[in-house]
Amino acid sequence: MTGQRADARRNYSRILAVAEAEVAQHGAAASLEQVARTAGVGSATVRRHFPTRQALLEAVFQERVQTLCGRADELGRTGDSRAALLDWLRAFVEYAVSARGFADALTYEPPTDAPAGDAPVGDAPHSCGAVLEGAAAPLLRRALDDGTVRPGVTFHDLITLVVGIALATEHHTEPSVQADRLFTLAVEGLSPSP
Amino acid sequence: MTGQRADARRNYSRILAVAEAEVAQHGAAASLEQVARTAGVGSATVRRHFPTRQALLEAVFQERVQTLCGRADELGRTGDSRAALLDWLRAFVEYAVSARGFADALTYEPPTDAPAGDAPVGDAPHSCGAVLEGAAAPLLRRALDDGTVRPGVTFHDLITLVVGIALATEHHTEPSVQADRLFTLAVEGLSPSP
Repeated sequence: MTGQRADARRNYSRILAVAEAEVAQHGAAASLEQVARTAGVGSATVRRHFPTRQALLEAVFQERVQTLCGRADELGRTGDSRAALLDWLRAFVEYAVSARGFADALTYEPPTDAPAGDAPVGDAPHSCGAVLEGAAAPLLRRALDDGTVRPGVTFHDLITLVVGIALATEHHTEPSVQADRLFTLAVEGLSPSP
Repeated sequence: MTGQRADARRNYSRILAVAEAEVAQHGAAASLEQVARTAGVGSATVRRHFPTRQALLEAVFQERVQTLCGRADELGRTGDSRAALLDWLRAFVEYAVSARGFADALTYEPPTDAPAGDAPVGDAPHSCGAVLEGAAAPLLRRALDDGTVRPGVTFHDLITLVVGIALATEHHTEPSVQADRLFTLAVEGLSPSP
């Protein structure tokens, strides 16, 4: 048993390392067949560890998601609720723009039976979206309580907006510059400053 | 010659009709091979009429683009420059959300040697983006001249933002509702009303 388990663990690590390289190169459309070939295992083995493309993408981005969660925890202890939320969102924009496939892994929809404001992000409790929401939604709640953010804005709105900005700027020559322009536009709005 | 031309025209119309159906079903990733098979022509014939996927998508969306251009002309003759721009952008959001593949056809980048404000949208003068810009950029210029829109905002910013909103909401159960929420958020900004 121990030998089998050690084998399975090595397989998992090798498949994940290959998947990370494939996703970095091809984004969310990375070929699972190619991952299996490069890792030197059968497609069935890949599917046993990662039953869906979504599962594989989430494993690939787990570390990144954990970093963003850690950042949310830190910012939750700082004084200015609006600045904390915006700092976190900017870190999220940066990640979403720099990692091919990350935005795709986050295009989810909230369950239709949940009210929009409380809808868990992601359709599985351990999805990237749900994990990010667990860590960062308190930053939005605090800003809403302080009245530093427009009432009615949901965490889901903010995540979807950032995902859209990342997807729309992916093919630009300077994605992060354009994404930052668009994020600033969305935060400040279209009207001239009073 | 006339018979050959008539044949070519019929081929073109048939391929375009099939392409419209394929793109409506599969979006920008529609298979050109499948278009050729369904239209009963060889792939070489499809490629002669549409040398690139982008060329095919632009032909598919040409009518839609013309409608949006007509709307821009109408709105350009109305009194309120900010309302005219926002009305046009809302019509554009609606189209981008309702037509699979339209947003993909618009993910372009401006040429790097042009200043951001003047960069033609799209990399070819007849691309969807360039045609839309020709018709609707005057709405933004008028709003900027009137001081009803934040200085520094470019037409390219607005198009990219809408494209992003369409891409990020594509898999939602109610894409147009969520897209409208996000567009309103971006127009009003994240701050509470004063």
